[in-house]
Amino acid sequence: MSDTSSLDALIQALRRLPGVGQKSAQRMAFHLLQHDRAGAQVLSQALAQAAGNVRHCQRCHTFTEDALCEICQDAGRDATRLCVVETPADQAAMERTGAFKGLYFVLMGRLSPLDGVGPRDIGVRELIERASDGTVQEVILATSFTAEGEATAHAIAEALGRRGVQATRLARGVPVGSELEYVDLGTIAHALADRR
Amino acid sequence: MSDTSSLDALIQALRRLPGVGQKSAQRMAFHLLQHDRAGAQVLSQALAQAAGNVRHCQRCHTFTEDALCEICQDAGRDATRLCVVETPADQAAMERTGAFKGLYFVLMGRLSPLDGVGPRDIGVRELIERASDGTVQEVILATSFTAEGEATAHAIAEALGRRGVQATRLARGVPVGSELEYVDLGTIAHALADRR
Repeated sequence: MSDTSSLDALIQALRRLPGVGQKSAQRMAFHLLQHDRAGAQVLSQALAQAAGNVRHCQRCHTFTEDALCEICQDAGRDATRLCVVETPADQAAMERTGAFKGLYFVLMGRLSPLDGVGPRDIGVRELIERASDGTVQEVILATSFTAEGEATAHAIAEALGRRGVQATRLARGVPVGSELEYVDLGTIAHALADRR
Repeated sequence: MSDTSSLDALIQALRRLPGVGQKSAQRMAFHLLQHDRAGAQVLSQALAQAAGNVRHCQRCHTFTEDALCEICQDAGRDATRLCVVETPADQAAMERTGAFKGLYFVLMGRLSPLDGVGPRDIGVRELIERASDGTVQEVILATSFTAEGEATAHAIAEALGRRGVQATRLARGVPVGSELEYVDLGTIAHALADRR
């Protein structure tokens, strides 16, 4: 229907969102136009603002609107500990625990050879350089405990080892609040080996 | 993190999309900012354009950018048949069959008392007026075969009956290509009753 080209363009644009196919895009467009035009305007402006303003922190690579993110600017953080996470969401989860007072390095991804994501894409060289600056005493690898996250942690730990920088990994074990019966065997085996 | 207010605003705006929660919104925002800034700009413009340009056809209520939609403008359509559908997507599905040459009335919803959607919200009065204009000889009710869609069809058929306008309903039956074994019993019972 050529007289609804704005609608078609909106549906195609919505399909660029991850996990959104033709049907979902139609449903979203219909909802916004029929029930929430204000929401469409708000989203339009939020997208333009974020695409224009959000950039990467020069030190830790997380999203920020300044040259340095708030955490990197905070002189009260312990600069001797550097926590390596995959995404800003992982960083936010770590911050919510309140258990870590050091600084971060956000990979903005993880090694994924099949998707063409190599060490350069996640800033491994910058990470190694920063970790070797003499201030950092411990690098805590907090990448995911998935195959790709483990491979990423392994590759970074090896590179750090060659520079003589100590790397640690988050402990694997039984999640708080879970019953042993329902925990997978690999996790129980790790929890047993790392018992304390 | 107050230094990523654009990011936070984007995540909140994405949550206004139907079926998108906090995690999905985070994932979408991360994807757009990290991998597809062009997509963010395209979506921003498509939203603003659609919210500004798309309105309702004065005759059939579907989405259009003109006063009348393409189908209502088409003098070659059979004005004696009026097909009532719930959404523009349903209308598009009907058009793709190529089996209907008449005109449409798009309810842009269906009766849903629990959600506060009454006859006025789906334009039942306008539909009845149009169906009683002397040109329309048959109103084909093509609302969904769900509880709400059936209730909507029933209410419209009753109102049309009081005006002496004939209303028909799409046939219920076994979908093309399906094996009887896997078809639900209500459908088989309807197909049996309506056998021809």
